[in-house]
Amino acid sequence: MHNNQPIGFIDSGVGGLTVVKEALKQLPNENILYVGDTARCPYGPRPEEQVIEYTWEMTRYLMKRNIKMLVIACNTATAVALEEIKEALDIPVVGVILPGTRAALKATKNNKIGIIGTLGTIKSGSYETALKQKAPQTTVTSLACPKFVSIVESNESHSSVAKKIVAETLQSLKHKQLDTLILGCTHYPLLRPIIQNVMGQSVTLIDSGAETVSEVSMLLDYFSIANRPSRQSEKRICDFYTTGSATMFEEIAKSWLDLSTISVSHIELGGTTYASR
Amino acid sequence: MHNNQPIGFIDSGVGGLTVVKEALKQLPNENILYVGDTARCPYGPRPEEQVIEYTWEMTRYLMKRNIKMLVIACNTATAVALEEIKEALDIPVVGVILPGTRAALKATKNNKIGIIGTLGTIKSGSYETALKQKAPQTTVTSLACPKFVSIVESNESHSSVAKKIVAETLQSLKHKQLDTLILGCTHYPLLRPIIQNVMGQSVTLIDSGAETVSEVSMLLDYFSIANRPSRQSEKRICDFYTTGSATMFEEIAKSWLDLSTISVSHIELGGTTYASR
Repeated sequence: MHNNQPIGFIDSGVGGLTVVKEALKQLPNENILYVGDTARCPYGPRPEEQVIEYTWEMTRYLMKRNIKMLVIACNTATAVALEEIKEALDIPVVGVILPGTRAALKATKNNKIGIIGTLGTIKSGSYETALKQKAPQTTVTSLACPKFVSIVESNESHSSVAKKIVAETLQSLKHKQLDTLILGCTHYPLLRPIIQNVMGQSVTLIDSGAETVSEVSMLLDYFSIANRPSRQSEKRICDFYTTGSATMFEEIAKSWLDLSTISVSHIELGGTTYASR
Repeated sequence: MHNNQPIGFIDSGVGGLTVVKEALKQLPNENILYVGDTARCPYGPRPEEQVIEYTWEMTRYLMKRNIKMLVIACNTATAVALEEIKEALDIPVVGVILPGTRAALKATKNNKIGIIGTLGTIKSGSYETALKQKAPQTTVTSLACPKFVSIVESNESHSSVAKKIVAETLQSLKHKQLDTLILGCTHYPLLRPIIQNVMGQSVTLIDSGAETVSEVSMLLDYFSIANRPSRQSEKRICDFYTTGSATMFEEIAKSWLDLSTISVSHIELGGTTYASR
């Protein structure tokens, strides 16, 4: 039995690529479709209802493409929309928050865990709730880092401006004796070297990508929907769609995924303009 | 939201304790019920229909106890009964073969994987099929070790007879250049030091217990049925039932799980006597 329908990944922009990178490694037989809503990125400061609506638009786009599983590779969207979408769809839906939580609890030794994320994710309290439910003895420190996503989306992750902003933003975390810091936004692993440098080598950074893809791999087995290795003549499909500039997306994706060629297309989603409240 | 119903574990005897050991570590908030069908152990040489029937009897016993998830912690039963039972029950059902397969594929570097198991498991070809489907380049060597389960069930795992039998049985595997050996029976981890010694330190032994419990942990999250940490006044329930001698079971369980007290009761299952064919 095999199922060659693609797995869908959605994110507010390029952040979900950090999850796709793991999928390319751990799931060599699977076809992948990715939607990044770059035009409306960042999601972090947007009202909850708007993030839910945008997430549904990406989801509907991929459902029409006959995906067999949906990965909400965006923490902000997972925090506010996962339960609703999982409930509504008849395919498995995976978010990034519980995998990140599990990975952090595995890694910590002193039970002092930090979380950095967008305004939306931090305000939702999702990580804090999940950590406290699993391990009430954990001390959790949360910090919203509203500038990080824009740095990554503008392909400035390696600039000196990025270094300065990251160092200033994380300053308040440095004396909390954290041994584990959750990168609670899929964009942040692209800033990993800078974040690690600021926090020091003794802090374990948790990128939920690997753990999320392990969950995807398990669920593919559990629901018997894994794809089988293709014949040599068939190539794995890995297509990217962005609501923003295909060129900018392609530049970041090629460098992050370490691929020489990549298929990126521009798409339009929604059409309704939402006034921000 | 929390769910304090127990997770059920079933095995032909004490083998599933190697999975429970991991569950005690990874899932400190969960209540556990265990049935070991010691009186009819080993399952390995029995006809398929009989193993399916016995597995159903253990399953029904636990379903009456209102379990929220079933772990078939027995490779022989997983090989022949998992699909049928998973299909029939409205709770999640987990086996040990796919987790073992995933763990082996993660561990191997030279793609030469060995599998040892009962006659029933090896005859079913379940591991071989799963490995080949995921990674066709894998060279798989299978070996039935029909004497190992009885050694463990008679609490002889540390005896010199055990050493001799294990060394003789595994002789034919030693020149296969395996770098990974799946302990394809949940009893075998109790013989782990002897098996490791015979195979040499360069061979990674895969005990599917840890990987199975990771799957259980993920599914508890996925289906939102995890239990929450109990108040200090509540104690985690961990009850064992055996169709054989409670005393012998208790002795093995206490030593393997490293617990000073343990609750083991004798139960009767079935009633029909099956003639072996």
